[in-house]
Amino acid sequence: MKKSFLLFTFLLLSASLPQAEEAKVAVGNNGIAIPEGYKNFRLIGVSQRSDDQTLRAILGNDVAAEAARSGKTNPWPNGTILAKLGWKQKPSDKFPAATIPGDFTRADFMIKDSVKYASTGGWGWGRWIGMELKPYDKPDFAQECIACHSIVKDQDLEFTRPVKLP
Amino acid sequence: MKKSFLLFTFLLLSASLPQAEEAKVAVGNNGIAIPEGYKNFRLIGVSQRSDDQTLRAILGNDVAAEAARSGKTNPWPNGTILAKLGWKQKPSDKFPAATIPGDFTRADFMIKDSVKYASTGGWGWGRWIGMELKPYDKPDFAQECIACHSIVKDQDLEFTRPVKLP
Repeated sequence: MKKSFLLFTFLLLSASLPQAEEAKVAVGNNGIAIPEGYKNFRLIGVSQRSDDQTLRAILGNDVAAEAARSGKTNPWPNGTILAKLGWKQKPSDKFPAATIPGDFTRADFMIKDSVKYASTGGWGWGRWIGMELKPYDKPDFAQECIACHSIVKDQDLEFTRPVKLP
Repeated sequence: MKKSFLLFTFLLLSASLPQAEEAKVAVGNNGIAIPEGYKNFRLIGVSQRSDDQTLRAILGNDVAAEAARSGKTNPWPNGTILAKLGWKQKPSDKFPAATIPGDFTRADFMIKDSVKYASTGGWGWGRWIGMELKPYDKPDFAQECIACHSIVKDQDLEFTRPVKLP
């Protein structure tokens, strides 16, 4: 009876993972589909960019989070998925010294597979724009990503260094 | 056999949740223990503060995340736990337009229980300082929190408005 209850709980939890809506979004960007469940990925980092006035949250799937917490991110292990979520920044109307997120700008993804993505630095690169998650879908998109990320080729083409956590 | 495997998987997942180390930290701050598993809470928001030059990530437990995603955060439901994690900000040495997290500064928590914490605005308030998570532990700490958070009494004493997510 107890086993059945636990099994039922497990199946219920599995079935209720909030992934369905994201899976519907059209495949785009170098043949990459938007990773399922990315909104529930774990914290890897945060940043603010003065060039485009955005705030960012960098989240990672379980492989990425475990790598980040154990300091094994150079290279990031195969199976890593990093989600970079951005919002236009704005001042808080409640606390003027705070800058907070406004409109959602885009979701960028880096998916590590050193075999599958060998020709693009070991990473699959994807970008979706705005709340409607419109695929960025440019012909040379991966090369556009790499052109900038090559600045950090000494840290596996990834700008984000995981935040320090107690 | 299949059921046994699923049950085993479920028990294994339950047992491997990375909560043990956090539970060791001393109880402090208005009698509140540091919430277990907070590093794996889900994204609620990010912010930057110019008054103390910090970057923040605001994470929430499942109750908080579900409330945030369904827009039911005024009031936040009982059972909500919000974790506000802060880092001293610094410029990126790889991408000068980016401001990124440096040293971890503190972890603040708000725990919603309108009965248990009726005398402190319906929230339990806790703060731990630095990588060693030293309890802040001041006698009038809850009142110190409320004094500032009363600015946002029209949004259940909570500054953070959940980020927009697709």
